[in-house]
Amino acid sequence: MYILCLNCDDRPGIVAAVANALCDSNCNIEESSQFDDPYSNQFFMRVMFSAVTEGAEEKFRNMFEAVSEEFGMNWYMREMDEPVKTLVLVSKDDHCLNDIIYRWRTKHLNIEIVGVVSNHTVNQELCEQFGLKFYYVPTQGVDKNEIDERHFRVIEKTGTELIVLARYMQILSENMCERYAGRVINIHHSFLPGFKGAKPYHQAYERGVKLIGATAHFVTENLDEGPIIEQDVMRIDHRDYPEKLQIRGQDTEARVLARAIEMYAERRIFLHGTRTVIL
Amino acid sequence: MYILCLNCDDRPGIVAAVANALCDSNCNIEESSQFDDPYSNQFFMRVMFSAVTEGAEEKFRNMFEAVSEEFGMNWYMREMDEPVKTLVLVSKDDHCLNDIIYRWRTKHLNIEIVGVVSNHTVNQELCEQFGLKFYYVPTQGVDKNEIDERHFRVIEKTGTELIVLARYMQILSENMCERYAGRVINIHHSFLPGFKGAKPYHQAYERGVKLIGATAHFVTENLDEGPIIEQDVMRIDHRDYPEKLQIRGQDTEARVLARAIEMYAERRIFLHGTRTVIL
Amino acid sequence: MYILCLNCDDRPGIVAAVANALCDSNCNIEESSQFDDPYSNQFFMRVMFSAVTEGAEEKFRNMFEAVSEEFGMNWYMREMDEPVKTLVLVSKDDHCLNDIIYRWRTKHLNIEIVGVVSNHTVNQELCEQFGLKFYYVPTQGVDKNEIDERHFRVIEKTGTELIVLARYMQILSENMCERYAGRVINIHHSFLPGFKGAKPYHQAYERGVKLIGATAHFVTENLDEGPIIEQDVMRIDHRDYPEKLQIRGQDTEARVLARAIEMYAERRIFLHGTRTVIL
Amino acid sequence: MYILCLNCDDRPGIVAAVANALCDSNCNIEESSQFDDPYSNQFFMRVMFSAVTEGAEEKFRNMFEAVSEEFGMNWYMREMDEPVKTLVLVSKDDHCLNDIIYRWRTKHLNIEIVGVVSNHTVNQELCEQFGLKFYYVPTQGVDKNEIDERHFRVIEKTGTELIVLARYMQILSENMCERYAGRVINIHHSFLPGFKGAKPYHQAYERGVKLIGATAHFVTENLDEGPIIEQDVMRIDHRDYPEKLQIRGQDTEARVLARAIEMYAERRIFLHGTRTVIL
Repeated sequence: MYILCLNCDDRPGIVAAVANALCDSNCNIEESSQFDDPYSNQFFMRVMFSAVTEGAEEKFRNMFEAVSEEFGMNWYMREMDEPVKTLVLVSKDDHCLNDIIYRWRTKHLNIEIVGVVSNHTVNQELCEQFGLKFYYVPTQGVDKNEIDERHFRVIEKTGTELIVLARYMQILSENMCERYAGRVINIHHSFLPGFKGAKPYHQAYERGVKLIGATAHFVTENLDEGPIIEQDVMRIDHRDYPEKLQIRGQDTEARVLARAIEMYAERRIFLHGTRTVIL
Repeated sequence: MYILCLNCDDRPGIVAAVANALCDSNCNIEESSQFDDPYSNQFFMRVMFSAVTEGAEEKFRNMFEAVSEEFGMNWYMREMDEPVKTLVLVSKDDHCLNDIIYRWRTKHLNIEIVGVVSNHTVNQELCEQFGLKFYYVPTQGVDKNEIDERHFRVIEKTGTELIVLARYMQILSENMCERYAGRVINIHHSFLPGFKGAKPYHQAYERGVKLIGATAHFVTENLDEGPIIEQDVMRIDHRDYPEKLQIRGQDTEARVLARAIEMYAERRIFLHGTRTVIL
Repeated sequence: MYILCLNCDDRPGIVAAVANALCDSNCNIEESSQFDDPYSNQFFMRVMFSAVTEGAEEKFRNMFEAVSEEFGMNWYMREMDEPVKTLVLVSKDDHCLNDIIYRWRTKHLNIEIVGVVSNHTVNQELCEQFGLKFYYVPTQGVDKNEIDERHFRVIEKTGTELIVLARYMQILSENMCERYAGRVINIHHSFLPGFKGAKPYHQAYERGVKLIGATAHFVTENLDEGPIIEQDVMRIDHRDYPEKLQIRGQDTEARVLARAIEMYAERRIFLHGTRTVIL
Repeated sequence: MYILCLNCDDRPGIVAAVANALCDSNCNIEESSQFDDPYSNQFFMRVMFSAVTEGAEEKFRNMFEAVSEEFGMNWYMREMDEPVKTLVLVSKDDHCLNDIIYRWRTKHLNIEIVGVVSNHTVNQELCEQFGLKFYYVPTQGVDKNEIDERHFRVIEKTGTELIVLARYMQILSENMCERYAGRVINIHHSFLPGFKGAKPYHQAYERGVKLIGATAHFVTENLDEGPIIEQDVMRIDHRDYPEKLQIRGQDTEARVLARAIEMYAERRIFLHGTRTVIL
């Protein structure tokens, strides 16, 4: 099974062209979703297909070159079962890391964890218990460029495609944000209404909020404001003191981040300016 | 804007054939979803498209005849803004009826209520306040066939497409179930776990269930067991006595039924044996 | 059945004193909840009790005077079935108004709607259909004090206890906020993350948020920032254009506002500085 | 901080008696909830209190003996921070086990895992990685009484209070159910509507259910029908094939089981015939 993802300016004939190329190269469409954003006139398509005859997918790939040029498409094609090479960045909190490790080792997430990078050593043991390579990259008093260099080296060496900030409490450099745009997913808590400043769980307690949530998003230079991938909330009440709110928030963070990674691994997420399209 | 819905046995070339027919008749695909059920090898497709030139949709309709025959498709095509002619059947409880009337008069649901049929008169005033035609069809001591006859007459006279059982507490005849298969939506309460027999809210209280829900489904001869369209639940606790559970359940029923009608009106529901596919 | 609500500084002996006064006056506690906020040292208590002998509640009321003075309590006592005299303020949107009317006429909410005030006339017919007194109080070009005067007159004349802003799109005066502090409930949409400025549903679409919600809160001079009573969210996706987001948001608003009114009518809400305690 | 839990037949004076005993022994009530079930006339109470002077809790315990006798109470008192000695029983699936281990080692659950019992060895390594004692008690071809004996020995030796069936796929003996009534929590999947028989996720797929859930309950001799503690659901759609439904179901199971254990550890659960009261 293969996945084809593409986007381009909308105009008549795109679906026909894609479907014809698949049909002519002996491929069968198994699932397909499309979306045409009326505000930007952008067209998005995700197609799962199987090769009816051997090598049909290669035939399609070649045939599709011309189609994609004609319509000015961004596109890629992947084997569906191919796990996404994923690098996890983490600081001290391990609730997301623990959850990702579980889903990786039970194959609930179609990823290969190629390593874990941390600016602390507290999670080294957990990683090594499960045979994961751990990279200690301290950030305290270290030059930003040097940190970048070390990160880039790990990313390149491991062939990382997806970078997951699983409670990595450092701001990424502009350079890193640009270089890996659309490939870095972050998770952070969210509240209704939002709070600025420190100690958000204490603020939430003070305001008596009834829901606390989490947002997974692509990382951009605008901290915590990148295109949203997934969100969820959990119900709380006035008895939940700030420490308990934090535990509840962490549960929600782990769950939301896992779903974002799952959608990435299933090639469902399309980055579209300040937003995402999930097909 | 138009909507095309189709299903047929899966085989290579379906999407290409549909897309080519649309493209060749000067129609532009705006949104499209497909699903291929691997267990039954059935293919389902919903396409929203616009006519780029005048009359293009008629050209497409003619051109598509040949395609649909080639693939043995069930299909229909509708103008998207055309409201669905809907007949509401109700007994005494009015929580669903009130909700449907509100969504109809505010155009939140793309339906035209062509009438309300009831085996009681308590809801006559509410209907007439909003200018709805009310048909009183008593069932107590009346011959089943005669009831059917009166229902059929209303349905035919009004050109009803969709029949909504908005807490209609009578079992429909086999004849009626067959005649309008896939066009009658019912709502009923659901519990985790399910309860058989009378007074379900008392049973739920006795078992201390924590969630009560509702299920909207197509009506078949198997009472309350037709293909499921939509479901939702609401959280309750041990303090909620049976009367309060019932109010909570009614809220959920109204909400779930409204979503099922919305999906029907948007032509998203495909009946598929014992289940539905929502595109 | 009666309800006693009280709050005071926490210190040993409060519950014993309340329970003794109830016991000694022949009243039986049916349900009781308490909360002691460790951050402010405030104690909150809600007790439902029945009179075992005739007139026991009056005996208790007299006996309790001394207790409440000893502990410096804020308190009140109500008959449980006594509906809360409620005045609804509304502008043009009727989704909350329609929902409140339904719950009032089916007795799902233990309120008596003593009137509806609006700065527009579009909802007059709906109100009068259900026999509700409608007060047209225009705001365009009218002096703030004069508006206040007219509102105050309606409130006093009708014996209003609770004021519900059911999408009333005007900012209440400082004077009104102070005068009815803790008795005015407002509903507004909420997003994760929050948006400032106009057209929030368009902003939500642009940011691709996955959840939209609503918050019911007590009105204070800080617009949309009063103590939160209830919140909920609904799931949306990238296909939901701004107009649909608005319909979804309105559903959530009506549901959340109804729950806030229900909790008020059940005497569960305690105002506590910038937050609420729900017992 | 201490927790007092009690239940007895309802009659006037219970709260006063409890509160007086606390007050007279120099204890301060911090949080208290009560519930009086009108159907069974049973009264339930959970009180959190602190000792104002040294040894006040012991004084209270002695003083309370007389009160509890007078009202015929079932009761117990615990130090709040004292972790609940918990034995986990598991078969092959580790999604619940992994989650419990995480919450235990991060102290998100106030439990001490005194051991893990399994009828398979696949989870031995995971347990030992985290320093947990693992007991292999095979069940294949082993006499029921012998299994019981081995279980009982572990339970007694470890001083186990709470037994958690974290996907333990064996039916407990009548003997064990009776002996540890109200101390064994099980988790199982739940559907709307419920399904009987094997392969429930395939059945759920066939019926096109839209929600799958999980129920945590006390174990009784009626398999999967004991008093419900906690429930939750997750949304699915027609594309989710049975294997994916299973993963979703497992997520829900782990989450619901964790909440049930949390409520047990916080001494919030009262067993009440076929149901529970959560205070």
